[in-house]
Amino acid sequence: VSDLVLVLVTRPVLRDSGASTSPNDPAPGFVFADPAAPQLSVLDLGVTRGDGVFESVLVRDGRAPALDAHLARFASSARILDFPEPDLAVWGRAFAAAVEAASTRGQRAFGVKLVLTRGIEGSAQPTAWLLAQPAPDFAALRVGGVAAVTLDRGYRHDAARTAPWLLQGAKTLSYEINAAALREAERRVAREVVFVSSDGFVLEAPTSSVIVRFGDRMVTPPSELGIVPGTTVRRAFEFFAQQGFETASQRLRASELQGADALWLVSSIRQAVPVTALDGAGLELDEGLTARLNTWLGD
Amino acid sequence: VSDLVLVLVTRPVLRDSGASTSPNDPAPGFVFADPAAPQLSVLDLGVTRGDGVFESVLVRDGRAPALDAHLARFASSARILDFPEPDLAVWGRAFAAAVEAASTRGQRAFGVKLVLTRGIEGSAQPTAWLLAQPAPDFAALRVGGVAAVTLDRGYRHDAARTAPWLLQGAKTLSYEINAAALREAERRVAREVVFVSSDGFVLEAPTSSVIVRFGDRMVTPPSELGIVPGTTVRRAFEFFAQQGFETASQRLRASELQGADALWLVSSIRQAVPVTALDGAGLELDEGLTARLNTWLGD
Repeated sequence: VSDLVLVLVTRPVLRDSGASTSPNDPAPGFVFADPAAPQLSVLDLGVTRGDGVFESVLVRDGRAPALDAHLARFASSARILDFPEPDLAVWGRAFAAAVEAASTRGQRAFGVKLVLTRGIEGSAQPTAWLLAQPAPDFAALRVGGVAAVTLDRGYRHDAARTAPWLLQGAKTLSYEINAAALREAERRVAREVVFVSSDGFVLEAPTSSVIVRFGDRMVTPPSELGIVPGTTVRRAFEFFAQQGFETASQRLRASELQGADALWLVSSIRQAVPVTALDGAGLELDEGLTARLNTWLGD
Repeated sequence: VSDLVLVLVTRPVLRDSGASTSPNDPAPGFVFADPAAPQLSVLDLGVTRGDGVFESVLVRDGRAPALDAHLARFASSARILDFPEPDLAVWGRAFAAAVEAASTRGQRAFGVKLVLTRGIEGSAQPTAWLLAQPAPDFAALRVGGVAAVTLDRGYRHDAARTAPWLLQGAKTLSYEINAAALREAERRVAREVVFVSSDGFVLEAPTSSVIVRFGDRMVTPPSELGIVPGTTVRRAFEFFAQQGFETASQRLRASELQGADALWLVSSIRQAVPVTALDGAGLELDEGLTARLNTWLGD
């Protein structure tokens, strides 16, 4: 744990007044803490109920170009869970402090996880922290790709609209189904999962978004399907547009994946990982295009 | 927190050998800890992923008659999540120690929560604890009842069989949808929820099981629908059978609830709470029968 930097956010949400903290506020709203020491109560709703939200942000050479998109999504997740609004000014300052501390230790690439829980039951005080950890090296995965399987996520494509209490589209701490799906993939001798709605629409992967290539056209499923709006998809689409591809956010039937020319799973931390086989059927691996995409995303 | 008793379980799962610990093992496999101090790492998968299972057991006058059923369900939840098998001998001893400590403080009724998480990521060491807390007084609720609404849980009635990675039927720490459903109930000026499958079958409530009365017949939905097998339902059905009711575990369409004569939500901690209105339509409240049922459950 000597590689970790932990920052506890002491003023994570906007106060009842609704007024944001002043940028000149003398109290920073966060403190550094020991990541090797226990920091959480067994009464915290983050652990007893998975009642919280998170984001994971990649930092390279001290820069996190997608930070604003991540903070916006963090606030969106909090809204879906009826949390008080995160004080993004404090989170931004705490993030910068974590990045500086991790960079001082000579780390070039690391992930920063932002976590906000509903806090100790009955306290009405959220618990909040940031944790910077060295990013695992996903270079081999980005080049060689992964085998994936499609799995039913159980909900209809319109569940986010018809049943908002199912919290589709939020990055919550109630994440165990994603881990269970990845274990099921392993049992099927694959490493990744492409979730499909109960009525047959392509959704997303447990920790990444899906981009599918059909000839000169790149397609990603729309966030109205109750999927987490991808911050990395947006940047990947900028790249593909520059390369002359058409890009579209539109519904795809799982059956249409059989006609796909390529498929990538994209996320902040791993960037773009090509899928080389889906449900046992081979997919084209365009090494050159994938490498250029990852260079773009990594810069 | 002076009312709380926290026991950390240091040997929560069976060892690789598969051999259970000997009852004469000199090391008890648990230690008492300070519930007011932080005990959990921010790296624990219990909080970062909601990756764990739990049980809540009511203790009255030092007795927990349903303990074996709870321990069996705890083991079942662990199995659904691909956890190593809990060492129930150790959990049983730790439970007895927590009960003794709480009883010594003069508490007559308290809940004991058992929690097992996958532990710190990469450690392969589960984290485990028991927490005894005074049980809130639900007496008024048991007499006066609650208003409830039906809400779609999003999954088909057969999801537990067709998509086991959705972990239906396990009591997991990824519990936030239950809290969100209760918030939705509040918005509808109700206090409780009866979940319905996406194809219209009655399931369970967020933290309790459902019993529906049709004349002389008591019905509860079967656990094959991906619901948590109710330990209290079983005891309630013993009572109803003694009172001359027919009891059945069978599928119910949500539309059939319109013909119900009464409905109860039953759980270990709250016992039997009558539902006085469902989706705004009044239900009969049989005060005498409900009181006798709660006396039975409380003894």
